[in-house]
Amino acid sequence: MTASAAATREAALDALRKAVGAEHVLATGEEREAHATDTSHWHQVPGFVVYPGTADEVAAVIGAAGRLGLQVWPFSKGKNWGYGAHMGLEEGAVILLLDRLNRILEVDEELAYAVVEPGVTQGQLNAHLQTSGSRLWLDCTDSTPDGSVIGNALERGVGYTPYWDHFASLCGLEVVLPNGETVRTGGGPRNSLTWHTYKWGTGPFLEGLFSQSNFGVVTKAGVWLMPRPEAMRCFICELSDERNQPAATDALRRLALQGSLRGNVHIVNDVMFLAQMIQYPYDRLEGRTNLSPELRAELRRRYRIAPWTITGGLYGSRRQVRAAQREVRKALKPFGRVSILGERGISIVRRLIAAWTRFGGIPGVPSLLRAVTRGSLEKLRVVLEIYPILQGTPGEYILGFAYFKRRGPRPRHDVDPGRDGAGLTWMAVVSPLTGKHTSELVGLCEPLFERYGLDFSITFISVNPRSTLGLTEIFYDRDDGDERARMLALYDELADASLAAGYQQYRSSVWYGERLLASSDGFGRLAGTLKAAVDPEGVIAPGRYGIRSARA
Amino acid sequence: MTASAAATREAALDALRKAVGAEHVLATGEEREAHATDTSHWHQVPGFVVYPGTADEVAAVIGAAGRLGLQVWPFSKGKNWGYGAHMGLEEGAVILLLDRLNRILEVDEELAYAVVEPGVTQGQLNAHLQTSGSRLWLDCTDSTPDGSVIGNALERGVGYTPYWDHFASLCGLEVVLPNGETVRTGGGPRNSLTWHTYKWGTGPFLEGLFSQSNFGVVTKAGVWLMPRPEAMRCFICELSDERNQPAATDALRRLALQGSLRGNVHIVNDVMFLAQMIQYPYDRLEGRTNLSPELRAELRRRYRIAPWTITGGLYGSRRQVRAAQREVRKALKPFGRVSILGERGISIVRRLIAAWTRFGGIPGVPSLLRAVTRGSLEKLRVVLEIYPILQGTPGEYILGFAYFKRRGPRPRHDVDPGRDGAGLTWMAVVSPLTGKHTSELVGLCEPLFERYGLDFSITFISVNPRSTLGLTEIFYDRDDGDERARMLALYDELADASLAAGYQQYRSSVWYGERLLASSDGFGRLAGTLKAAVDPEGVIAPGRYGIRSARA
Repeated sequence: MTASAAATREAALDALRKAVGAEHVLATGEEREAHATDTSHWHQVPGFVVYPGTADEVAAVIGAAGRLGLQVWPFSKGKNWGYGAHMGLEEGAVILLLDRLNRILEVDEELAYAVVEPGVTQGQLNAHLQTSGSRLWLDCTDSTPDGSVIGNALERGVGYTPYWDHFASLCGLEVVLPNGETVRTGGGPRNSLTWHTYKWGTGPFLEGLFSQSNFGVVTKAGVWLMPRPEAMRCFICELSDERNQPAATDALRRLALQGSLRGNVHIVNDVMFLAQMIQYPYDRLEGRTNLSPELRAELRRRYRIAPWTITGGLYGSRRQVRAAQREVRKALKPFGRVSILGERGISIVRRLIAAWTRFGGIPGVPSLLRAVTRGSLEKLRVVLEIYPILQGTPGEYILGFAYFKRRGPRPRHDVDPGRDGAGLTWMAVVSPLTGKHTSELVGLCEPLFERYGLDFSITFISVNPRSTLGLTEIFYDRDDGDERARMLALYDELADASLAAGYQQYRSSVWYGERLLASSDGFGRLAGTLKAAVDPEGVIAPGRYGIRSARA
Repeated sequence: MTASAAATREAALDALRKAVGAEHVLATGEEREAHATDTSHWHQVPGFVVYPGTADEVAAVIGAAGRLGLQVWPFSKGKNWGYGAHMGLEEGAVILLLDRLNRILEVDEELAYAVVEPGVTQGQLNAHLQTSGSRLWLDCTDSTPDGSVIGNALERGVGYTPYWDHFASLCGLEVVLPNGETVRTGGGPRNSLTWHTYKWGTGPFLEGLFSQSNFGVVTKAGVWLMPRPEAMRCFICELSDERNQPAATDALRRLALQGSLRGNVHIVNDVMFLAQMIQYPYDRLEGRTNLSPELRAELRRRYRIAPWTITGGLYGSRRQVRAAQREVRKALKPFGRVSILGERGISIVRRLIAAWTRFGGIPGVPSLLRAVTRGSLEKLRVVLEIYPILQGTPGEYILGFAYFKRRGPRPRHDVDPGRDGAGLTWMAVVSPLTGKHTSELVGLCEPLFERYGLDFSITFISVNPRSTLGLTEIFYDRDDGDERARMLALYDELADASLAAGYQQYRSSVWYGERLLASSDGFGRLAGTLKAAVDPEGVIAPGRYGIRSARA
């Protein structure tokens, strides 16, 4: 580092320390390196990592960055694993982590919403609701309890209940703009009674500007919560014949359009289900780098899983849920075995799994339990872990899938796949919710995975009655240089090919944003023009989702 | 007009004629005056009225206006009666009416949406669906069949079915920007398969920019449609005691949060219900300018209407609707008489009304029918006319309420209250959906109506499970100068007082926008900054919703 560069860096450090307090700025090589981790290949070491404690400190950091010509990349908690986690597009950025803005400011029981800061995690909000005797449920993801409620919603994450669409359930934002000013969305009066109950506000709806973008830092938001329903059930449909997937998808669309399905539905293929259950069977590869069709079939038989498994929740009054149960069963029965679980069923599963955990070491017990459950103990364990998520209680178990190809056992607590060197990159698109399109997408993706010697893993998540996310999970061994290279080549080809076929990306990795907006011509230019207006110097995350200040 | 002004005007006329063809530019005094009508007091004569036939012509008009320093105020059909209809903020603007962009471009039966141009009316789209044998239903408003589907959605209009929130059901816009460029929202690839099925797109969600604002001219949009449900019912709850309104409102919120109510619900007071049924009883006023409490009570008794009437639809599978029916009845029964009508009930009503229409002239028949219906023929007529609206078929009958205080009989066909000199101004806010707030709002508004000698008329429309619109209808006699003045004074006081009390406006009149954004500090500045970026010269509707180009 030259003397002048060192002086510049020193000035920056001083300014950031002044903005948030010296103890909240990380600047050593080790600290910076520790923040440059993701399950993908992405690795950009930040210049500084800053933890502001208030919205004013956020504004102060942005102001200082503007004066000093630094880039600020804000993240709520930064658990965006597989998309670039909490890293910028280039080395040396100021990474702004909002962990310390972690207050639950309000829970309105009557109008069923909470007001939280971006550092509030889904685990924290869930625990708060449970311990305070609230009758409200959070909608959570199946990722870490340590993920931010607001961060996930701004990235348009999804959960499982009728409040699945987290961006749709966000209502009323406080945002620090690049010029340091704080604005309140909604356009209502200062004392607006409906800031957190009416999403569109008065005048233009501007909350969309702050989602999947870089127009400001959200420092507070309202989040709609679901009153605990009178009844709730979980349904599972196992498609024994993979050729049934398109027809089952069409049936799901009809159920959703009819209103029988109000929550969303996950359709996972066998590889993704296996990843939730077991570690990768490296010892069975016989020279390959991915599972052979025979081995995949053998594993399906062994763990009694289907090529495709559909899961979802049913919510409402007792009568509504009873009606939905019948309709779902009738619609899906032609395509596979349908199981519907409520509290009673789940408590039997719970006891079986408890017995397995406790007495599994006693000879004969495992085989007895396998006989009782027809060999599906691992599968039931997954069901047991998904069930609370359907009720808004996040857990660490399911996220274990990220460790699928990491050698050695996966952790069950303090799960942090980015830190732990797990290899997982997401490439996620949106598809019409039709069997024609889901099978077209499978037909497009699967051969590419095969070509690169990786395992085709996909989850379809119906995100409204007309659309489904198609999330491909690229599992790879991060310690294997050749496999990393194949993962990257596969990612590029998957992303380019799906985009060319008309599948828009659901959520972009840090590194793909630029190519993405380039494909959308006018839209990218409009975003750039707006960005230039609110952030002429490009202080906040320039290039995120491809958006850079560009004077028209 | 000076010679130079005349030359400028001539140049503008030439340019506009070149842009859209001479026959599509109206410029005579009479033509311009005919376009300066609304049911409110608003009256700004346009400089020109222009009817482009394509998106390119829209761009050409905007380009010409930019060069010539003209303002362009775009309207789809301009049926925004009571808010300023299709008039600008100042005299002399170019009024752009999109009547000729009236193509239904696509109806996707499987994914349940249509793609339409802004001149497509709700009557046209409904007729198209019915005659083409579609199994899809439009959600329509109870205003004119001649209203634009897109225009209403961009103004955040509401209907009655589960697709009530028209802006929420809009998906995928094509917009001509002030610089003449056409953009497609959504951020997906050019051939995006989900442009009309996935609302948020990729990257920032920018559709909100084009709603209740002036950032561009929408020339095409996707509109979600509802597959005809297996079952449908209409429910009516009549609150005989007005003190029950808050508790009934709370019950409705709980039903909506639980998912038993999926469509929206209208709660109208007696004055609004009377306005739908009869002409104003001027001969009974006895020196007053509004109904005395005694007369109001007498009219309620005579037409057998309650102080408050709740109506809504139930939609879904037969089982779901049966469940919802029981839940609604149980929840509302404590507050008033609950009637639930399906096809069978409505056909009895239809026959009664037909008999009344046909044989009403025969002595004895009306009194016989009144005895059969317990005196509520006019009320049943309203029910009969609302029922098709609950199924997406718009009609002209209900809108007759706009003529309440116009002297003489109201028209039943070609209903156009702006043209016909009917007097109605809306002042509409959003309130939390709680009995506490609806009664606070009533308590705030009713005395103001009384003070100005006008009749307190209000409709609450639940716009999501947490919020309700509170639309006050100010009926007045347009031909009475004193009453016009009182209407305006009341409007101002209502708008200011509700804003001060924390009730954001739902939809602004042309003339109130400026005051509105001023109250929201940061939000108004942000909107101005964005406006300056896309429309630096302020070509499109400057001042609409208070938004004007303002460099930060």
